[in-house]
Amino acid sequence: MQTSRGQHDAIGIFDSGVGGLTVFRRVTERLPRESIVYLGDTARVPYGTKSAETVIRYARGCARILLDRGIKMLVVACNTASACALETLQEELDVPVVGVIEPGAAAAVRITRNKRIGVIGTAGTIHSEAYPQSIRSFNPDLQVFCKACPLFVPLVEEGWTEGTVALEAARIYLAEMIERNVDTLVLGCTHYPLLRDVIAGVMGPEVTLVDSAESTAEVVSEVLNGMSVISTDEGPPRRHFLVSDSPGAFATVGRRFLGQDIGNVEWVDF
Amino acid sequence: MQTSRGQHDAIGIFDSGVGGLTVFRRVTERLPRESIVYLGDTARVPYGTKSAETVIRYARGCARILLDRGIKMLVVACNTASACALETLQEELDVPVVGVIEPGAAAAVRITRNKRIGVIGTAGTIHSEAYPQSIRSFNPDLQVFCKACPLFVPLVEEGWTEGTVALEAARIYLAEMIERNVDTLVLGCTHYPLLRDVIAGVMGPEVTLVDSAESTAEVVSEVLNGMSVISTDEGPPRRHFLVSDSPGAFATVGRRFLGQDIGNVEWVDF
Repeated sequence: MQTSRGQHDAIGIFDSGVGGLTVFRRVTERLPRESIVYLGDTARVPYGTKSAETVIRYARGCARILLDRGIKMLVVACNTASACALETLQEELDVPVVGVIEPGAAAAVRITRNKRIGVIGTAGTIHSEAYPQSIRSFNPDLQVFCKACPLFVPLVEEGWTEGTVALEAARIYLAEMIERNVDTLVLGCTHYPLLRDVIAGVMGPEVTLVDSAESTAEVVSEVLNGMSVISTDEGPPRRHFLVSDSPGAFATVGRRFLGQDIGNVEWVDF
Repeated sequence: MQTSRGQHDAIGIFDSGVGGLTVFRRVTERLPRESIVYLGDTARVPYGTKSAETVIRYARGCARILLDRGIKMLVVACNTASACALETLQEELDVPVVGVIEPGAAAAVRITRNKRIGVIGTAGTIHSEAYPQSIRSFNPDLQVFCKACPLFVPLVEEGWTEGTVALEAARIYLAEMIERNVDTLVLGCTHYPLLRDVIAGVMGPEVTLVDSAESTAEVVSEVLNGMSVISTDEGPPRRHFLVSDSPGAFATVGRRFLGQDIGNVEWVDF
């Protein structure tokens, strides 16, 4: 079914907002010749506080928009959407669909030494139990401790990634993780890498932080190789950004995530 | 046009989520015999970070749902929706539409002695400049200072309405208001009354906090009286709750806002 998609087609990536740009960035580093269409569903952001049914509905809408642009594969660069909607999308779509949870879980399984893994994420991601399920599918002997940290996303969106407020919030949320003596902590939300310094400061140098963006980019590369549709185009790749709310606001906040200017942003209604 | 609506019909109230329950509560206290249909657009919450165009689109959707239930008047119990969409709804609908901004602005104008009023709210509300416009329409000599406080809503939703994180966030956001020497501070978001103690602690006893819920309930009463459709029903009034996302989550968080259990909550798709 997937033979209609070719190496010149773009990779589609979606997230509820700007957070998925951390994944976008890793994919462009790993696969610099690939064209990418990124969709941020900024009119409905955040997904992390919404129910699974609602997140599935929104994820279907995002996928449809990107498929209309002729993508060769879809990356669900949002932990909540990956947790709630990945299986549905994999069943319904005729392109390969990769989420961020399994790559992050696999990385944590490789890293842990004391067999105690912590996972932090949005309420939606944590309640779905997608991380413990994925981690235990790799190794049922591992212990997994999960904690929802609802204030981390608004802290990042506000730009308060250092200072007393971020530090105190991190101390409160992470106290359990320190008590549980985890040696590996999965940053189970694409916003959280921007709080890496604060989180690392609270957890201490013994704990390894896992950012699934990197592992996800690796899986994307494997899938494209497996399908023999890796781009070998010599020209500059296309990088296109779509949003469901104001393009201007996305460009401003997105700059922090991408570490560089975002070019043209197009508004889409769905 | 409004003669088709009678005293037995309900008042419609909508908000992006649970925040408008502070208005719901004041209306039930002021008008205990009125039936009310409350709609929380929890699938799209928050409105305060979205663009005016998107908020208008969502507000129209909310109004349509409530009009289908046969309401006699509509209360926009969300500051952001009042700031962005009130005029549009007043033009388009055939029932009276009341927002929360003008009542709050009028109360601040009555209270200030030193003619320096502060307004805090979501980014959407503050950028709309609806409060300064409304305040100056009452008295052009007043000085108005505005500040968006994007973390206050997630703090309330998380239940962190006291403690270091809330206090430090309030100190940062309100420093300008203290510098400006305001004697009146409008809580321009229906979530903020739940942070009243923290805000009052930072601002000090000289500053009066204005919660527009109370003034809005007063205006609702005036409008119903003016139309002669105040309910005189003797039986228990109908209180009905609609949400666009999970009814269970709404009932849990809503309890904190209402100060009592929320009964049956119905899911609506729009």
